[in-house]
Order: sequence, then structure tokens, then C-alpha cells
Amino acid sequence: MSEPIKLGIAGLGTVGSGLLKLIEKNAKKIDNSLGREIVIKGISARQRDKDRGVDTSSMTWFDDPRELAASSKIEIFVELIGGENGIAKDAVETAIRSGKHVVTANKALLAHHGLALASLAEENNVALNFEGAVAGGIPIVKAIRESMMGVEISRVYGILNGTCNYILTKMEREGRKYEDVLKEAQEAGYAEADPTFDVGGHDSAHKLALLTSLAFGTQTSFESIYLEGIETITPADLEAAADLGYRIKLLAVSLKTESGIEQRVHPAMVPINAAIADVDGVTNCVAVDGEFIGDVMLIGLGAGAGPTATSVMSDIVDIARGVVYPPFVHPTGDLIPYERAKMRAHEGRYYLRLAVHDRPGAFAAIAQRMAEQNISLESVVQRRLQSVTDEDSHSSVTVPPMPVIMVTHETNESAIRRALEAIEIDGHVVGQAQMIRIENL
Amino acid sequence: MSEPIKLGIAGLGTVGSGLLKLIEKNAKKIDNSLGREIVIKGISARQRDKDRGVDTSSMTWFDDPRELAASSKIEIFVELIGGENGIAKDAVETAIRSGKHVVTANKALLAHHGLALASLAEENNVALNFEGAVAGGIPIVKAIRESMMGVEISRVYGILNGTCNYILTKMEREGRKYEDVLKEAQEAGYAEADPTFDVGGHDSAHKLALLTSLAFGTQTSFESIYLEGIETITPADLEAAADLGYRIKLLAVSLKTESGIEQRVHPAMVPINAAIADVDGVTNCVAVDGEFIGDVMLIGLGAGAGPTATSVMSDIVDIARGVVYPPFVHPTGDLIPYERAKMRAHEGRYYLRLAVHDRPGAFAAIAQRMAEQNISLESVVQRRLQSVTDEDSHSSVTVPPMPVIMVTHETNESAIRRALEAIEIDGHVVGQAQMIRIENL
Repeated sequence: MSEPIKLGIAGLGTVGSGLLKLIEKNAKKIDNSLGREIVIKGISARQRDKDRGVDTSSMTWFDDPRELAASSKIEIFVELIGGENGIAKDAVETAIRSGKHVVTANKALLAHHGLALASLAEENNVALNFEGAVAGGIPIVKAIRESMMGVEISRVYGILNGTCNYILTKMEREGRKYEDVLKEAQEAGYAEADPTFDVGGHDSAHKLALLTSLAFGTQTSFESIYLEGIETITPADLEAAADLGYRIKLLAVSLKTESGIEQRVHPAMVPINAAIADVDGVTNCVAVDGEFIGDVMLIGLGAGAGPTATSVMSDIVDIARGVVYPPFVHPTGDLIPYERAKMRAHEGRYYLRLAVHDRPGAFAAIAQRMAEQNISLESVVQRRLQSVTDEDSHSSVTVPPMPVIMVTHETNESAIRRALEAIEIDGHVVGQAQMIRIENL
Repeated sequence: MSEPIKLGIAGLGTVGSGLLKLIEKNAKKIDNSLGREIVIKGISARQRDKDRGVDTSSMTWFDDPRELAASSKIEIFVELIGGENGIAKDAVETAIRSGKHVVTANKALLAHHGLALASLAEENNVALNFEGAVAGGIPIVKAIRESMMGVEISRVYGILNGTCNYILTKMEREGRKYEDVLKEAQEAGYAEADPTFDVGGHDSAHKLALLTSLAFGTQTSFESIYLEGIETITPADLEAAADLGYRIKLLAVSLKTESGIEQRVHPAMVPINAAIADVDGVTNCVAVDGEFIGDVMLIGLGAGAGPTATSVMSDIVDIARGVVYPPFVHPTGDLIPYERAKMRAHEGRYYLRLAVHDRPGAFAAIAQRMAEQNISLESVVQRRLQSVTDEDSHSSVTVPPMPVIMVTHETNESAIRRALEAIEIDGHVVGQAQMIRIENL
């Protein structure tokens, strides 16, 4: 056996404790394959005394993770503190500057400061590995960085947030409203008290920013991501989607277009007979379409102690084997500036749901506004959906608005937005139109 | 940039030519990320003059791949000749003995001689990488060997043969017979003139033997794989499966049981709402269930020039980075002998289709035989399926046998076989019973 490899682990929450357990249970097996012993030399967390189910008596305790990061006792600093700034960032920078390899599962940190940190890591000849930061246990970082090295990737997309996928799956299966299911998810611990970060798509966007850079060799650009959450999805949409042969998923998509890279996170319709439609509950997936390799999809648990700890471990093992990759596939100096494709140029098919006043000429006017924008319709359904009828029957004695569902042929976002604006001004519709993009798969 | 890495490529068929094209097209991008230039120094194939769409004038030609394998001009020998013995084996051994790293996509060679070759590679401190040998473009070898290092895997399974999956998909969608679809697949080049190797499950078994060893740390044991092909699947089975909420796929499964490892390749029913049910046509998938990581599935193209060349390239890049892994995760001396679980001990649910003489007491007798083996039934359907009625109406004027379809609760293979034997002896059924295992997913 070669020299042992010495770890310092900062942050002993869900993932950190999971990593301690994984190492305790499987260290022998790993050491054996690796030819090196993995030893945890130091740990740091907010609370020292908490019972984490693992004997930590042989590990030196550090009150300040920055001290651990700088300690000469360790070779790899494992950052599992979380947060885009503050102590996590300080500690990672300290570790890199003092010549330690870094393994992190901190997507927020990397989405915002990944490029600067990668550059710092390069200067100091250390690794900055982050398999655990993107889609938990799904080994997508290694897949893009190593397995797909040298193929031209055209699109990367996926379901990157378990909370949203859990809510949408439950809404669809049980025909229940967003608010109800969210509340239940919060009570069960699947959603945070303030769920905005998940349901608004921000968490997915952090991961997408990293995937984009890995796949396309560009500098990370979190700020350029177009963002829509799942808050406006209703049982009526899910029911209509099923009727049309689709499911609704919160997708994170990054693709090359002629005018630049389109990064977007929004609810999207996917064909019910595609594998991605069956990625349900808290499960995540990431798909890559590329030249030579074709379409590849990885499905697995996107969060949680075990899956994320497994990914963190794989990053540690790579370093222990002596492999230092450029964090974003290419040396940071070679990463090309991100060129943003305008969302209004997005091309695709659209699902629209309007609540239309039930009076003569309303539908003709809507059809006219679509035609003016050269939008042709693949299907139109004008009928009372069960779920809508139920809701409305309690709320009013006058004639309730009629739901009209339209699926367009290929068009662009600009045309759709102009048509909807004109329709709203005409005054035939009640409230805001629902618009959901249909993803080409 | 460091020293260039020098390749010798033997075998310039579909995958070999694909690799030449991939390198020609993307070398700069790869060199850039790698910090080393990838140079093809020597090539060898059966036909020298064939146009492969790539300029090979700068590469030295070798009539004999063994000479290329031994040549001091190269550091990595890429074996894309194929075949379990003969020249491919000789060339790989020569390469290893003369200190060359080996990259191969030859599943037959490895399924039969993988252990000996891995041991030889170890002695000579060279890599023996084979990502392209298992499921083409799906990066499953790296996923198990690196990303899942240190997790206890309980099952690995997948759809590993594109020809079979293509035939089953087409039979199901078009309601057509096996023989018809096979003939069409042969004419279209999706199936060989002698299709036995694919449709009989042998090709899947080669890949499964490698997956088993990677996942469980055991010595490869191709001979222990229980094998059934897709030849007996009928439109009636596919129709009944759909009615019951399943699809039929040729699965390759390896799992840990109390009595050893169960390796099997056979048609199996998978729930229609599982992602694996939507893996259709020539697409393949591999799934791994493990402690900590949960269930992970990778889907992609399992064969073809581009996908396989991409995998071969990733193996080359790893070597160029200086990484030499034990081919089967652990040093060969640590691989444990394969302990075979008897197929008769297989536990699960079963689908049975019998052609029963339409006379009093027949069904009661069958039910009795099942009860004697303690097999309880989840569902029984006794009716004329469309496809069966059509076939029978032309063949006979007497009362045709009645198809009876049964789905059992959890039982074991031994009980099922005893029950079927007794039922056949009773003489109430025509021909052989169809028996398809239902996979727990």
C-alpha cells in the first residue's frame, strides 16, 4: 500500500454524516481497490457534541473550518458546509491556497464562484471536484468530463430538483392542488419552510449552470438562466397534459442555438412514452445529447445522505489515485465566454390554457390573434375539464369561463408572447394565460 | 503540453473507423483538455486498401496486429478486432507482455479470458480498459469502477442487446410475429444472417459476465449464466403483458442472493410505468441498485460506431492522464471466486400462458397442480386474445384450445417447474407452456 490519504471534512449535516458512515462501513473495500488507506484526520461543524452515529474520537476537531482547511494534517479538504458565500467560500479558498485538494458538494458556491475557484485551483495545482454538487448520486460530472471527453454536446437537460418532481408527481397522481401537496411535502420534510429556492427553480438553475459549463466548455453564467417555477401549475394542466399524451416536469435545459446558448428552467411537457416521463417522485435525471455518442440519460437519486456521499467519495478516490482534472473539463483560460441566446428566440411547441368568456366570437378572436403571429395549431380542446368544473361550480352562479386548451405547432417564444398579449387586451379571457413549453425529445 | 500519447489501432471495422473519425474531428479539443496530443502511430486491419473516409497516410500500416501490439512506436494498443480467441487474444497478450496499455471493446474475449488478461495486465503494470465492451456508449464501466467505488451493490441489470430490443419493440407496436420482424431486421442490417448469438441471449451474457465481476468483485463466470432467448415470445404474450401493465424485455440480471450470485439472461416482464419499459428500439440500459447510492440507471445507445468509439476514447484519455485502474475494480488476487445461485432457487412472480383444451375440469386440474406447489395466483385471464383467435381460426375447424394466462404471487422457479410438469402430464394443455419471469423493480 502507498501512503494513506488524509481527509479533512467540514460540515457534518446530512451529507457529511453520510460520508462518515460510508467511510466507516466501506473503508476496507475502498482502501483495497485503491491501494491506499483513506483516513479522516480532521473534522469541523457548527455543533461539536451532536451524535452523528459514528465514532469521531480519532479525528481532530476544528472549531473553525478555515483552520482545518489550512491544517498541514490534511491533503484533501471536503467542504460540505453549503452556502454561496461566507465561511464555505473562505474555507475553500484557504484550502486551495494552502495546496489542498478540494472536494465539494456546494452547488450554490460553484454556480456563483466556480470559475474563480477553478482558476485558483489551477494556479495551485490542486483538484476541485464536485460530483456531489450536481444531481446527488448521479455520476454526471464524471460522465461529461471523462466519458464524453471529445464529443460535441448539443444539449444537456434534466430533472434536477427532487422537491419539485415529488410535488408534480403527487399532484398528477392524486389530482390535487399545488398548495395542498406543497403543505404536505413541508410537513413530511420533503420541502423547506420557505420553499421558494426549490419550487421557483433556483436550485435547478445552480446545477444547470455547472452542467452548461461542463458540456459546452463555457464560463459559468448563472445570471443568464431563464427561470420559471412550478407554482402556477394546476391539476387542470396536468389532466390536459395526460389527455394530450404528456407529463409535466420541471426541466432544466441548456442547448446550443445559432445565437448562443439557451439556459432555461421551467415546467415543460415531455411525451408520456419517453423514459424521462417515468422519472418520478424525488428521483432526478440528466440527459446529454451529443455527436458520436447519441442520447445518453442517467437516472438516480438527486439528493440525500447516501447518494451524495457516494459521489463525494468518488471525487476523493480520484484524487487519491493522483488524478487532477481541470474542474470544468478545459483549463479555465480556455473556457469561452458564455453567449446568451435570448429566451424570446426560443423555438418549440407550446401548450396554452386560457379561461375564455363563454360568449359568441371569443374563440374566433383568439384564433385570429394566433394566426396574426403565424402560429398554427396542432390541437384545440374546448371543454370543461373535471377539475376545473369542480372548482368553478362553488365559486359563482354566473356562467363560468370556458377552458380552452391549445397546442401549437413549432413557433417561437416571441410570437407566442405577442399573441397572448393581444388576446389579453381583447378582453375575452379571464386572468393570465397558462403557457407551458413542450420539449422536443 | 506533455509528451504526445501514441496509439496503435487494430481492427478498422465499424468501431475502428468510427474511432479514426472521432479522433480526426475532435483531436484538438481532446488534446487541449488533456494537455497531451493523441497520435495514431500504427494501424492494422484485414484489408489495407478499403476507403474508411479518413486519411491514414501518416499512420504506419501493420499486416499483423501482433506486430503492431509489440511495436515500440506505440504506448496504447487499441484492440477492435473482435472474437473470443485467435488473433485478438494473441495481439492483446502480446501488447500487455511488451508493456503496452490495452483498450478493447471485445466483450467475448473478456467474458472468457478477462480474469487471465487482467492478471497479466497487473503483472506488467499496464491498463486493460474496456468501457466500449459493455453497452456501447453507456459509461457504465467507469460508473461502477469509479463513481460507485465503495458502495455495496446488490443488483445490476439491464437491456444489453439492441437487436433483441428492436425486435421486441417492433413486435409489440405492430402486433407482428417474431419470425416476420426478425426477417425484416435482417434485411435492414439490424440482425445478423445467423441471429442466434443475439436473439439467444449470448451477446447479453458476455456483457453481463463483465458487469457481474465489476459490481460484485467476483471472478468472471460466463459459463454460470442461465440463458433464455426471445425466440419463443409471441404477439399473444406481448398483448397479455400490456393488458396486465407490463412490457416484455430481454433482461440481463445479476443479483446477490443468500446462496450465491444469480446471473441470468431471459425475457422478463417490467412494469409499463418504469423507465426501463420505455427503453425501446436499439437503445440499451444498465441499472445498478446499491447501498448508499440507491437505484441508478444509465440509458443510451448500446452499439454502433459513434457510441462505442466514444467509450474507447474515454479509456484512452484515462490512460493518457496516467490513471491505471485494476480492470475489475479490485486487484485480481482479491476477486472472490464466483459462487453460483441455482436458477431453481430463483424467487419471483411468474407469467404463464397455457393453451388449454376447452373441456370440463381442465382448468380445475390446472389450478389444483398450482395449489399443490403452494403457488397462489394474482390474476387469471381465460379468454381468446385477438392474436390467438386469428391464428387459430385458419388452422382448424375443431374447437381450438383456450389460452389461459396466469400471474402468480411470489414463488420460486422450482415450484413453477414442478407445477408445469404435472400440468403437462395431466394432458389438458396443448404444446409447451410459456413462462416469463416478472422482474421486481
